[in-house]
Amino acid sequence: MGNVKNERMLDFIFTGSPSFSARAGILQTAHYTVKTPAFMPVGTGAAVKALTPDDLRDSGVEIIVANTYHLYLRPGHNIIKFLGGLHGFMNWNRAILTDSGGFQAYSLMNTRKITEDGIHFKSEIDGSEHMLTPELAMEIQSALGSDIAMVLDECLSYPATYEDTLRSQELTTRWAKRSKAFSGREDQSIFGIVQGGMFADLRKKSAGELVDIGFDGYAIGGLSVGEDRSKMLEIAEATVEFLPKDKIRYLMGVGKPEDIVDAVAFGIDIFDCVIPTRNARNGTLYTWNGSIAIKKSAYTRDERSLDESCKCYTCRNFSRAYLRHLWINQEPLSFRLNTIHNVYFYQELMREIRRSIEINKFDDFRKEFKNPIGGDEKCGQE
Amino acid sequence: MGNVKNERMLDFIFTGSPSFSARAGILQTAHYTVKTPAFMPVGTGAAVKALTPDDLRDSGVEIIVANTYHLYLRPGHNIIKFLGGLHGFMNWNRAILTDSGGFQAYSLMNTRKITEDGIHFKSEIDGSEHMLTPELAMEIQSALGSDIAMVLDECLSYPATYEDTLRSQELTTRWAKRSKAFSGREDQSIFGIVQGGMFADLRKKSAGELVDIGFDGYAIGGLSVGEDRSKMLEIAEATVEFLPKDKIRYLMGVGKPEDIVDAVAFGIDIFDCVIPTRNARNGTLYTWNGSIAIKKSAYTRDERSLDESCKCYTCRNFSRAYLRHLWINQEPLSFRLNTIHNVYFYQELMREIRRSIEINKFDDFRKEFKNPIGGDEKCGQE
Repeated sequence: MGNVKNERMLDFIFTGSPSFSARAGILQTAHYTVKTPAFMPVGTGAAVKALTPDDLRDSGVEIIVANTYHLYLRPGHNIIKFLGGLHGFMNWNRAILTDSGGFQAYSLMNTRKITEDGIHFKSEIDGSEHMLTPELAMEIQSALGSDIAMVLDECLSYPATYEDTLRSQELTTRWAKRSKAFSGREDQSIFGIVQGGMFADLRKKSAGELVDIGFDGYAIGGLSVGEDRSKMLEIAEATVEFLPKDKIRYLMGVGKPEDIVDAVAFGIDIFDCVIPTRNARNGTLYTWNGSIAIKKSAYTRDERSLDESCKCYTCRNFSRAYLRHLWINQEPLSFRLNTIHNVYFYQELMREIRRSIEINKFDDFRKEFKNPIGGDEKCGQE
Repeated sequence: MGNVKNERMLDFIFTGSPSFSARAGILQTAHYTVKTPAFMPVGTGAAVKALTPDDLRDSGVEIIVANTYHLYLRPGHNIIKFLGGLHGFMNWNRAILTDSGGFQAYSLMNTRKITEDGIHFKSEIDGSEHMLTPELAMEIQSALGSDIAMVLDECLSYPATYEDTLRSQELTTRWAKRSKAFSGREDQSIFGIVQGGMFADLRKKSAGELVDIGFDGYAIGGLSVGEDRSKMLEIAEATVEFLPKDKIRYLMGVGKPEDIVDAVAFGIDIFDCVIPTRNARNGTLYTWNGSIAIKKSAYTRDERSLDESCKCYTCRNFSRAYLRHLWINQEPLSFRLNTIHNVYFYQELMREIRRSIEINKFDDFRKEFKNPIGGDEKCGQE
């Protein structure tokens, strides 16, 4: 059993055997103790779309992701600070990880310009100009009061040359140093983000430099940006080898259920992705026998629940026929019931993964796991 | 105490003194016993927008309205019948009243043509042609299995001449006769709908003819169609005088809180309107000190709940500042939390009305009741 006490509020304790690649553990944050491997639903703007905090708790969610970039622009981090931080603001008493804005710089800020100092961008809301520096990203996250803050990183477009990737990776390291130097909240952990594109040697270089700086946990960024699935998994797996065993590992923006299962196999601990929530609104719903496009006319008279083994509120109370009707009518209730189900499905998947690791049966679980994915396949903005 | 046993499943028992105009009672339907005066949230397409059945029960809702016209077109009444009727389909085990489609003929069907036989219209969904007869309206409602069915009526445009109103009122009576003759479900009550426009003598004629046919309850239709508030109340009050004291009275499509209070005063028992739910989505929220437009910047840092005396889920858990943020971001959660509050507010209003009637203090309640309305002022389609 590994048991590593960090400088800040983050304890990570293995509950499964650490001699296997797949790890089960307990991540103690300032607000909540999170069982890993964990999946974090995305609550970009201080709300997981269509769900209340109670809906999240009922699904077993222990940690969510919120977004520095979005909350900085609206309503503003100082307003959230005044209102009790993100936990008080949205009335969520479990753990929160905040992303730094680096991924939004990559995916949203069309008018951005990246310099040594930071990311210059125009607000998509009112056109106002902003400069997101590593220090500002930490200041915002400090005001938000998340349990885990991410350093600002540069997330390159795909594909990128070796030269561009090297330049970007080195910038990310310098930004990581500045972030760590600026950070200050005792109750907030900080994760570094490994970059290095699709080049294994740059991933190694990035990981080594971040480990030298010293973070409470390590994320793998810059994946799921257009490369194919096998490349994503190959680079993530190669990166893990350069990360310390006793620190938490976070594969950002991943992913589909089978991606999660495969990444747990080589030692990833936490995940986030908009797929379950966005697919819910698109009407793509998960079952243990594959995914369902609820709009199909085949479900018009289908009295069964989405998944007969599922214990979520939606499956306990409503038929596929009713869910189809709500979706066809684009009823607001459709988004909520579908989201409850998909979020619950992902949490159940993580529970099954953890259980199988703890009884040393993860390899069997992985072999038997059927591909339940369909619909929207790319993680990204919620 | 009045205690009148009807031919079908509808018992209406006074719980307050029937010697006063304002009445409190208990309306026993096949699925649930409803305390009156009651307000019915509108669940047009087999869902009250953004709310689950549990949300409705938690607010104290005992009866909702669903819509024959919408459910006939989509998903189709026979599909709902196959899926256990409307109660089974939407998993709502309390009372349901179904409107007949007459009001939709007035407000939605632009391509309609009204003949002696019924209402000929084109589907707004696929352009298909349909003929809604009094018999079909009853057949649909029988398939839906609502606790209370409404007869098909003609709802005239406002203003209308005496001559047109007379013709229309007489057609409505003939349709009411056909509806009653066609009805058959033992567990479904039928209400007649008094028409007669803005002419008190035609209202009297209509009420008299319907009472001669004999219904389980009587609705006042054709109001809230553009006339001013005082006219609406004047005609409704005049109509009540021609209705039997021992039968339930339903003022259709009304209304604002102060309209409800005023109409209870002259003996109305049940109400429905889209105002609380539609206003919720528009960000107009009720408090006992007046209504709030939640988008206003004054609420940006407002830590208070919407109404400090309110016990709804929204007020127990979230600040005005958070609700404003959700609304500005048009988060799906905004619609749900706002709707929970407004539906709860209306139910609380009805609880206060009933309480005050039962202790003979309704007049005091009415005098003290502040006008909490703002925002969208007209009932209509959800």
